[in-house]
Amino acid sequence: MAVYTEISDDDLAKFVAEYDIGTVTSCKGIAEGVENSNYLMRTERASYILTIYEKRVKREDLPFFLGFMEHLARTGFVCPTPVRGRDGRALRSLCGRPAAIITFLDGMWPRQANPTHCRLLGDAMARMHLAGSSFPMTRANDLSLAGWRKLVNACAPRAGEVNDFLAPLIRDELEFLSARWPKDLPAGVIHADLFPDNVFFLGERLSGVIDFYFACNDFFAYELAICLNAWCFEREGDFNVTKARLMLQAYRAKRPITPAEIAALPLLARGSALRFLLTRLYDWLNHPSGAFVRPKDPMEYAKKLRFHQSVTGPGAYGLD
Amino acid sequence: MAVYTEISDDDLAKFVAEYDIGTVTSCKGIAEGVENSNYLMRTERASYILTIYEKRVKREDLPFFLGFMEHLARTGFVCPTPVRGRDGRALRSLCGRPAAIITFLDGMWPRQANPTHCRLLGDAMARMHLAGSSFPMTRANDLSLAGWRKLVNACAPRAGEVNDFLAPLIRDELEFLSARWPKDLPAGVIHADLFPDNVFFLGERLSGVIDFYFACNDFFAYELAICLNAWCFEREGDFNVTKARLMLQAYRAKRPITPAEIAALPLLARGSALRFLLTRLYDWLNHPSGAFVRPKDPMEYAKKLRFHQSVTGPGAYGLD
Repeated sequence: MAVYTEISDDDLAKFVAEYDIGTVTSCKGIAEGVENSNYLMRTERASYILTIYEKRVKREDLPFFLGFMEHLARTGFVCPTPVRGRDGRALRSLCGRPAAIITFLDGMWPRQANPTHCRLLGDAMARMHLAGSSFPMTRANDLSLAGWRKLVNACAPRAGEVNDFLAPLIRDELEFLSARWPKDLPAGVIHADLFPDNVFFLGERLSGVIDFYFACNDFFAYELAICLNAWCFEREGDFNVTKARLMLQAYRAKRPITPAEIAALPLLARGSALRFLLTRLYDWLNHPSGAFVRPKDPMEYAKKLRFHQSVTGPGAYGLD
Repeated sequence: MAVYTEISDDDLAKFVAEYDIGTVTSCKGIAEGVENSNYLMRTERASYILTIYEKRVKREDLPFFLGFMEHLARTGFVCPTPVRGRDGRALRSLCGRPAAIITFLDGMWPRQANPTHCRLLGDAMARMHLAGSSFPMTRANDLSLAGWRKLVNACAPRAGEVNDFLAPLIRDELEFLSARWPKDLPAGVIHADLFPDNVFFLGERLSGVIDFYFACNDFFAYELAICLNAWCFEREGDFNVTKARLMLQAYRAKRPITPAEIAALPLLARGSALRFLLTRLYDWLNHPSGAFVRPKDPMEYAKKLRFHQSVTGPGAYGLD
């Protein structure tokens, strides 16, 4: 939940006048997107999401994120499209921060993902990866190995505040992964944060994907690994191989998974578990008391990492 | 800002199926209303606000609040209307809490109230007071003298944590007001929380009043006094008599203010300043660390109380 910036009436009216979208009739801060301030804004014509980008998003990355959304939408992939102002620009400024208006997407994210959701996700993920191949911009994943090393160095000294075994776990895992991380798997633009709260459904239909503010160039199979972690564990911590199989099967039907990708999946799953363990641990150790955002439990991802460490091969994920 | 309850997909679908409003296409928690969880919900047909009533609202008071909204809307006063389910009931249950769906209201609350807003507010307030006269239910104001005494007793011992002069200020003020509080002014149902964030505007038009969860029976002039405090002070703390005059003039044009009400206004303004000082002080002293809601500054209302203590007569509010 996050609304960090309070917009004055005048500022909002002036900002919206730069677009050809009609007059604002309503604008409410919504509890969506932890990194930015988001408002559900209605004009006489349609509904939109107004986003003010807060400090955690780098201004210089915004053209990539907005450009990727626009590119995807143009290929027919359902995601929010940035709205361009009368001067053709989508990225503008509001309350001294970068800001953009994007189209509103119907649908709800699943509070409890079921096998159907996972199947639909696999299909959409493959379509997104294919559609991204014609996108000309690139952005390195700053939350891969080098980024993890920074986070391990920042967190390990205080990791014992959460759990005694965390410091050795993250240090050892980083060394293990550093020595083995793949170098030449099929790659392209990935969403990199494809958690259930970023995927909308309407009944039995995936109605869209949102929140592209971690998108970057990385291995496609790393995205699959993120989704194994984010979608295929039950609340109690058990891995649901049926969900994994349905997700991967649906993905493969649209974009074949290579033997090298299959072989790398257990390692990539460990890497993605470490990545979310580290950012959650960092947030847990560094969130200001009294902040609006309740930090997510890092231990959830420590348990997922332990699961992947125990896996003997890609068969554990339902792959043949 | 507040979304306390997470609704599962199934629970939401089942809940909405009890109404004849179509299928839900979107449901987002909004940063509005501190006491309850509010969601902006869209169906194929229209937009609604779904409210889950959290612990601070007493279940037994809800029929009064919802009934008053429905009554006002029926008289043509613009406010949200509770939507009744197929069985005729507006108050239902969701996630184990009382819940209701109310109609969505266009408009935005003014981040900086200007004189026009104050004039429109005075007019709407009078219309609301008149419309309420035919509402058959009653609810005592639990945040009047007896309620203040409870809050003074709860807060005074720790008031020094905020400011040294607060404990004597609230104790002395309570005794002063207890000895003088009026007994027989014109009364009826008042909103009792008519702050700018509860009044929506569209350009030069007041488009509606929301959040009736403090509504109660009390003196009409006490509502005027609340609004003098909530709308007529500048951010720097100065009282803007032009705003007060416009508000009171517009009110009088619809519902005459009696000489007794005029004479009581300075005292009622002190009382309403004490009321918000006390609830803010209580929240300040008792909010859990790490809570979502940032407590409001009690000192703002200590300063307003000081202003009203220095007033020599109703002329200070622009009244003749």
